[in-house]
Amino acid sequence: MTPVPAASPASPFLRACRGEDPGRVPVWFMRQAGRSLPEYRALRERHTFAEVIADPELAAEVTLQPVRRLGVDAAILFSDIVTPVQALVDGIGIRPDQGPVVASPLRTKADLARLRPLEPELDVPYVLETVRLVRSRLPADVALIGFAGAPFTVASYLVEGGKSSDHRHTKALMYGEPEVWDDLLDRLAGVASASLRSQVEAGAQAVQLFDSWVGTLSEPDYRRYVLPASARVLEGLDDLGVPRIHFGVGAGHLLSAMAEAGAEVVGVDWRTPLDHARRQLGPGVAVQGNLDPAVLFCPPQVLDARVRAVLAANGGRPGHVFNLGWGVLPDTDPDALCRVVELVHAEGMERRHAEGTEHGQP
Amino acid sequence: MTPVPAASPASPFLRACRGEDPGRVPVWFMRQAGRSLPEYRALRERHTFAEVIADPELAAEVTLQPVRRLGVDAAILFSDIVTPVQALVDGIGIRPDQGPVVASPLRTKADLARLRPLEPELDVPYVLETVRLVRSRLPADVALIGFAGAPFTVASYLVEGGKSSDHRHTKALMYGEPEVWDDLLDRLAGVASASLRSQVEAGAQAVQLFDSWVGTLSEPDYRRYVLPASARVLEGLDDLGVPRIHFGVGAGHLLSAMAEAGAEVVGVDWRTPLDHARRQLGPGVAVQGNLDPAVLFCPPQVLDARVRAVLAANGGRPGHVFNLGWGVLPDTDPDALCRVVELVHAEGMERRHAEGTEHGQP
Repeated sequence: MTPVPAASPASPFLRACRGEDPGRVPVWFMRQAGRSLPEYRALRERHTFAEVIADPELAAEVTLQPVRRLGVDAAILFSDIVTPVQALVDGIGIRPDQGPVVASPLRTKADLARLRPLEPELDVPYVLETVRLVRSRLPADVALIGFAGAPFTVASYLVEGGKSSDHRHTKALMYGEPEVWDDLLDRLAGVASASLRSQVEAGAQAVQLFDSWVGTLSEPDYRRYVLPASARVLEGLDDLGVPRIHFGVGAGHLLSAMAEAGAEVVGVDWRTPLDHARRQLGPGVAVQGNLDPAVLFCPPQVLDARVRAVLAANGGRPGHVFNLGWGVLPDTDPDALCRVVELVHAEGMERRHAEGTEHGQP
Repeated sequence: MTPVPAASPASPFLRACRGEDPGRVPVWFMRQAGRSLPEYRALRERHTFAEVIADPELAAEVTLQPVRRLGVDAAILFSDIVTPVQALVDGIGIRPDQGPVVASPLRTKADLARLRPLEPELDVPYVLETVRLVRSRLPADVALIGFAGAPFTVASYLVEGGKSSDHRHTKALMYGEPEVWDDLLDRLAGVASASLRSQVEAGAQAVQLFDSWVGTLSEPDYRRYVLPASARVLEGLDDLGVPRIHFGVGAGHLLSAMAEAGAEVVGVDWRTPLDHARRQLGPGVAVQGNLDPAVLFCPPQVLDARVRAVLAANGGRPGHVFNLGWGVLPDTDPDALCRVVELVHAEGMERRHAEGTEHGQP
């Protein structure tokens, strides 16, 4: 393996993830790489989504585009949450505006045989080569985030056959055949764990576990049917020493349980003000978020006020990574994203210094 | 106006709404009338959705179908949350599998002129005639629930032009032009209020205000931009003395605020266990819910266990109306609904008596 240049330990993003004071509030955006950027759309006129993901030069270019244009403090690997299982299970595609589709969903004990362990260097070598290329080309103080889909969310695609609004097949399996469900989640935990470990070994300096759809569960069901597998993924990375971010949409009722899975940072969607989230999470957990992506369609003054409200809700505490509360919407104006980065960088510091003084903190 | 037969004050549903002990746990289902019933699908082969709503004989028949087949304790008027505004604003349609669509969305101050006050007897006489017909044909102990879309949710359709996953236009208006937003919500509060009042005067014995999509907001935004209008609707019915149910999906973080709007009963979706909901709501508020509609696709034993878990989470307290945590999914087996009604009627009573004794209650 070629040695890769490490990000500077002074990376504001990494320091904030560790609850330290990086001198300014770092910012990146979920789905910052993608359809909101004209340079991405230009590239996609010549290549399909699948081609981009499987070609390290293209995937690295797309990963780097938002760093150049927006000035964010972190890049996130351009890939898909089903990329690893696509290499294992036949018939998984990704359709524009629809997301992952699975030709023959997994719903029985027999179906689980289709899901063997992931061997990243053999199954998804292009992902690791992308990580290496991006890391070698990123400025030292910009961190690279690897990611994986959490076992529940990946399972929901495999069991439903695609995106679902009610998760009826997933829940029928979960509640009706808990042993099969546990086996499925255990296998997917192995896939996510192997994928994240290999990304970190290739140069990713932090990881995010996306449990996008887990908000559909109650907390007791989350604890019984999901938390053990997600904890296996996150706790399994303990020895690597990289910050772990755990995120779900509409999961305000699950925040403390999600932190228990072993995350240094919990991503918060826009429905839960950061001060509410901090009360649930307690000290020692950093927060990531949580501007409503819809607010990027508001006039500039309104956008500024909402950005300031996010900073104010955090109240200048260290351990805040600014982000949206969910991904950038496809036709967002990239100038609005630039505006947010500039404002967060300018005011995130002032605000902390001002509020820190007020509260007698250094 | 023709006098209509009132429901017996002994209606288990009405007693539970008032926090009394009706001797058994009453049950009905959101969307109990509709596509899950073969008799509804047969009728829809001959009539469009719009025809059914506008024809009191057809709408009354569809409203009564689930009472006959399922043995539920309440009927809910068959109509749509946009029916009143359809009578006021040109170009609102309802498409199968897509819901309301608005040809020319309302997004400016000038657009508000299109939204005049509702005069129910002139604008939607068929709705009131349906209420009268249903009430005259219902058994005395089965209650009739009227309903309206809450100002936020109806506004979201009018502003977006249809169902939206991100509510970007709604939020741009709400945050960007709060005076226009407040005016819009005030007008829609007037529409909902007039509609509900007329339904009660025609014979509805309870009302439900559906704020289906309000869960997309944080609690501070809900309190600033939505609660005053919803409170105007619900508090405006004070003098009628009918139970008011207030419901939103994914709104577990808003439960106490939604109760403050003036509801006797708060509907709870499946994400929030009823004991958690009761802790947020405090005494004096009844709860409605909250079986996950997806669970109706599980095997019978699993379904039974989940029904019992809902009853157990309420712990035998009076003031529980059993329901789903959201509407019946279109291809639900009606036999599964029957099974739930029978189980709730049989065990809801036993459980309360057993748990009441355990806790030393009468």
